[in-house]
Amino acid sequence: MNSSISSVAQIRSLLEALPGPDHAAALAWAAREPQLTKPAGSLGRLEEISAWASAWQGRHPPRLESPVARVFAGNHGVASLGVSAFPAEVTVQMVANFRHGGAAINQLCKTFGIELDVLALELDRPTADFTKGPAMTEAEFAAAFGAGMDSVPDGADVLVIGEMGIGNTTPAAAVSCALFGGVAADWTGRGTGIEDAALARKIEVVAAGVALHQGHSPLEMLRRLGGRELAAMAGAVVAARQKRVPVLLDGYVTCAAAAALEAECKGMLDHCLVAHVSVEPGHRRLLAALGKTALFDFGMRLGEGSGAALAVGVLKGAIACHAGMATFAQAGVSDKG
Amino acid sequence: MNSSISSVAQIRSLLEALPGPDHAAALAWAAREPQLTKPAGSLGRLEEISAWASAWQGRHPPRLESPVARVFAGNHGVASLGVSAFPAEVTVQMVANFRHGGAAINQLCKTFGIELDVLALELDRPTADFTKGPAMTEAEFAAAFGAGMDSVPDGADVLVIGEMGIGNTTPAAAVSCALFGGVAADWTGRGTGIEDAALARKIEVVAAGVALHQGHSPLEMLRRLGGRELAAMAGAVVAARQKRVPVLLDGYVTCAAAAALEAECKGMLDHCLVAHVSVEPGHRRLLAALGKTALFDFGMRLGEGSGAALAVGVLKGAIACHAGMATFAQAGVSDKG
Repeated sequence: MNSSISSVAQIRSLLEALPGPDHAAALAWAAREPQLTKPAGSLGRLEEISAWASAWQGRHPPRLESPVARVFAGNHGVASLGVSAFPAEVTVQMVANFRHGGAAINQLCKTFGIELDVLALELDRPTADFTKGPAMTEAEFAAAFGAGMDSVPDGADVLVIGEMGIGNTTPAAAVSCALFGGVAADWTGRGTGIEDAALARKIEVVAAGVALHQGHSPLEMLRRLGGRELAAMAGAVVAARQKRVPVLLDGYVTCAAAAALEAECKGMLDHCLVAHVSVEPGHRRLLAALGKTALFDFGMRLGEGSGAALAVGVLKGAIACHAGMATFAQAGVSDKG
Repeated sequence: MNSSISSVAQIRSLLEALPGPDHAAALAWAAREPQLTKPAGSLGRLEEISAWASAWQGRHPPRLESPVARVFAGNHGVASLGVSAFPAEVTVQMVANFRHGGAAINQLCKTFGIELDVLALELDRPTADFTKGPAMTEAEFAAAFGAGMDSVPDGADVLVIGEMGIGNTTPAAAVSCALFGGVAADWTGRGTGIEDAALARKIEVVAAGVALHQGHSPLEMLRRLGGRELAAMAGAVVAARQKRVPVLLDGYVTCAAAAALEAECKGMLDHCLVAHVSVEPGHRRLLAALGKTALFDFGMRLGEGSGAALAVGVLKGAIACHAGMATFAQAGVSDKG
């Protein structure tokens, strides 16, 4: 299938038509959970996860047998401004590494039985430098968004979303700053590991982009300040909702892309969990703005969907407990006195 | 094998003879890790985990193919003082539930391929009420400690340690308070979910026990204020170190038992990671005293080794990344400019 997205207005109308949680599945979860052989509430976040999976998969019990990961790669005009510790050629090299199974995300997908696909988005055509004009034309943005939508298969039990793109914490910072305010320095960090001088330059780049493109809608901000992989990740979040596939968001870049949807239309990320909070300082700030609490705080800053893939293990455990535990009656265990 | 532990003095001499980390394996880890195709340090805590596993398994690369869980159950004299929301008969009922595969720990072990064994420690002979005298005689304490030691198999890649015992957050609080000071209320929480009146009573019980048994060594405190499952868990931690099996500690009760070893002899828990911090307020305080940062903060308070079993997934992911990723040279990826 091809989503044939051609405009921002079309995306906006898609958002308005997205389904909500499945109330019947949520009620079935709530009827079963208190009967399980444990003190009420004692599995904490694991209970929230199985409830969320049930409501957003639209079935009870929820399942986690077919997890899927989609990693989107893009190149960025701003990478030529010295905002990264790595040269831009690393994006295409890392895509080859993904395809040969050598990256962190490959090991994590193998560990948790996740089907991985990597989508390289016109790596030979970096986006435009957003300090001079919009990063993408409307057609480029719509094409990337549609590619993200088309990447989501039917029948996945959860979708891990991640990215790779040298320089892409710069658009993440610019999009976040444009959406939620504050100054560029609040949202800008060291990415792959830049030194002080490069960080100062990166902050200037973010500030210049935000100043140039102020006053537009969130989706327009994603087009003007984002990148192809960010647009594609937003598209994947939307298609997952349409297909009743709950989503695990990864780090700063992934969450910045998704945040444009939430800022455009409240509740758009209710089917998404944030897997981890990265050391990139803007990520923590972004999660606060989104009202999301990450599962892990592991000091990660790799991207690739690595934190989200790791979280699939936690989801499997949470769902196994809800689906598989005996009830007090089945086990002959006395309930609370 | 049978450890034939017969005295606290004998345990103390075991502690003094425990092996440290394997420096050759640690060096091999440090030589490989910077060559992997990712920015240095970008896997954060996952890198610490694979380094720790390498050093404490004493091999490089580390492996996580044979995880093992041991859950220890005991009954407590103080349970008759109204410190729990559940009746004491639930301990034996839950042991049956473990054996039939109906508990949370069963689902988690199945999810992560963990071999589970449950050791019921003289459930028909609760420990003595520690507000009147020592919970265990030296012979009882040594027998439980030895049973814990004997439960650790050769060849395990990691050991998950957990417990079940109605009323056992009361000994956990008493042991923690005796080891690290402060007042009973600092260390005492709602356990399985007691109301205010029962919490006030529980605090009095903890305070009375700590007052009665003050001035003894940490291992003596574990004998006087602990319980059989706490003694066994301490024994399992020691045997795991002897056998080069890294340990995942679970919640408050598990950590209180292990803390007696650390208080007795500094460094005794260097081969242990704490899987999660529970909502039981004493657990967070205890981890601060031990200088340990938990992997998860999921609001769990079940015990059974549930948090530790869940962490096996994270360990598998961490070890898979270190062992399986391509190097910059192998993948033809440009290193930092």
